[in-house]
Amino acid sequence: MTMRRASLTALTLVLVLSCGAPENTQTVGHLPSWNDGAAKQAIVDFVERVTDPASPDFVDEAERITVFDNDGTLWAEQPLYFQFLFAIDRVKALAPEHPEWSTQQPFQAVLEDDKEALAAAGMHGLIELVMATHAGMTTEEFERITTEWLATARHPTTGRPFTEMVYQPMLELLDYLRANGFKTYIVSGGGIEFMRPWTEAVYGIPPEQVVGSSIKTVFEVRNGEPVLVRLPEMNFIDDKEGKPVGINSHIGRRPIAAFGNSDGDFQMLEWTTAGDGARMGVLVHHTDGDREWSYDRESHIGRLDRGLDEADTRGWIVIDMKNDWREIFP
Amino acid sequence: MTMRRASLTALTLVLVLSCGAPENTQTVGHLPSWNDGAAKQAIVDFVERVTDPASPDFVDEAERITVFDNDGTLWAEQPLYFQFLFAIDRVKALAPEHPEWSTQQPFQAVLEDDKEALAAAGMHGLIELVMATHAGMTTEEFERITTEWLATARHPTTGRPFTEMVYQPMLELLDYLRANGFKTYIVSGGGIEFMRPWTEAVYGIPPEQVVGSSIKTVFEVRNGEPVLVRLPEMNFIDDKEGKPVGINSHIGRRPIAAFGNSDGDFQMLEWTTAGDGARMGVLVHHTDGDREWSYDRESHIGRLDRGLDEADTRGWIVIDMKNDWREIFP
Repeated sequence: MTMRRASLTALTLVLVLSCGAPENTQTVGHLPSWNDGAAKQAIVDFVERVTDPASPDFVDEAERITVFDNDGTLWAEQPLYFQFLFAIDRVKALAPEHPEWSTQQPFQAVLEDDKEALAAAGMHGLIELVMATHAGMTTEEFERITTEWLATARHPTTGRPFTEMVYQPMLELLDYLRANGFKTYIVSGGGIEFMRPWTEAVYGIPPEQVVGSSIKTVFEVRNGEPVLVRLPEMNFIDDKEGKPVGINSHIGRRPIAAFGNSDGDFQMLEWTTAGDGARMGVLVHHTDGDREWSYDRESHIGRLDRGLDEADTRGWIVIDMKNDWREIFP
Repeated sequence: MTMRRASLTALTLVLVLSCGAPENTQTVGHLPSWNDGAAKQAIVDFVERVTDPASPDFVDEAERITVFDNDGTLWAEQPLYFQFLFAIDRVKALAPEHPEWSTQQPFQAVLEDDKEALAAAGMHGLIELVMATHAGMTTEEFERITTEWLATARHPTTGRPFTEMVYQPMLELLDYLRANGFKTYIVSGGGIEFMRPWTEAVYGIPPEQVVGSSIKTVFEVRNGEPVLVRLPEMNFIDDKEGKPVGINSHIGRRPIAAFGNSDGDFQMLEWTTAGDGARMGVLVHHTDGDREWSYDRESHIGRLDRGLDEADTRGWIVIDMKNDWREIFP
């Protein structure tokens, strides 16, 4: 390991000297949508400490793993998780084949547009809808369905495509981290195959750097064609205690920085920041009811309660969206 | 290690001279341990076709995903899978706490050094031994146990460290592919956490590019310290039909080339080569009983039967170790 790192360092040095690929921290000009304040300053300080070879907190590039929750951290999650809205559209499209859904929750709530009942169904309700609407097809068919929906569906209150309901300051942060040699991963409670078709275009995060919840898939040969078929059975729930497990399974390293916005991200931040050396935990606090939505301790979606209580003692950074972000959406 | 360092140096030199991530194919001089022959030629032809921007088979770098089985493809697997030998050593170390093992298979076979019975237990036997010997500790403790074993254990017939029982031609091939913009993954029936501690140093493959079988892990807070604990329960078997599933879960893209050596790799090659565009499936055929081991259709370990029958009609390349490889081990 040591020799390999030494070789890589040598390679890096050669590149710096010959090609000008700078090892030093990229300028803060990369974060134009962030107001100057404690949150931005703490993030920049962290990046400078772990990328400065002269710093005692220096971290090799290979270990600069950062993980980001998606719903409420990279894109909005109100009035319902967007995958919930996708499932709703699928339930409506498939309802004629399922008359039993008219008296069966959470399907009844979907068909009657009962958003309160849907929100109350929470992650568990989403899973039931996922089972009924996301399974039975091949992975390639599901990718096509997802892609078509994202191209045509619009957010119920803003009328914008969902891929434009992303946070501009977080897009800048992802770029800033990658420019400083960090590897950026999504670690979301949402479906891994719901996200992968678009995360590269929208966030610059390729499919292999997306971790999420999943249903079981099996390999089959259909008419001589090998395919992966999605089964109506949960495989993994990448939420709360599941997030460190998902990270360990997919990445195999403990991240040095984690970004979330709800108590579903608590264990991810807890595990990340308990590691040796410099660590950073960040919570996005939804405080801007005018430009976005304002919610925390009492929300069905993205509840943030324990995180707010403990952020201070744990040394986690809390982003106040209203004051820390100059712009919210692109 | 020596070759690997030499290759990195070579890569560095290439980068220094060209300074601009060359898109053209790196020279065949990267494969010195390969004899000129049909297998080497077919591999080089494939690499040239998919990396030449003027070729109709050109593939973007991001899609140049290659997957490698480990046991019998990157390192040896005789007289038993090396993880089997690791489990054997663990069973012996833990036996005093388990008197019942003296009459219970496959533990009895381990304690009596009955290699025939052990080999017959196959992958299923390995799983039982894994449950009994690999669980109950944290992921970090397991990494320590694995690392200590690899540092001290020796191969039963060659007396070499297991990390030197790797195939020199495959090390060169990994380097050659990466020098041409390919991303190299391990997709093994072996335990993912058994491999990750050493694959970067030995193969240049980082933990996040290792896919394998796994047992369940859970997040816990022990004395205020968040840890991941390994449970004696199978989570995923990354073998046969499981390999395309594991690839889809971890990578989220279909590879364009797959390398294996046994029927456990059949579906991985089948799924890989059924994709659109240029594809390559490669089987390592163990034909050299003098320098390595000679086995295929009748072997308990690494049985290759259906693959040999169908390689030709499927257009898969079969590497004849005896004739195609000038050297076997570093």
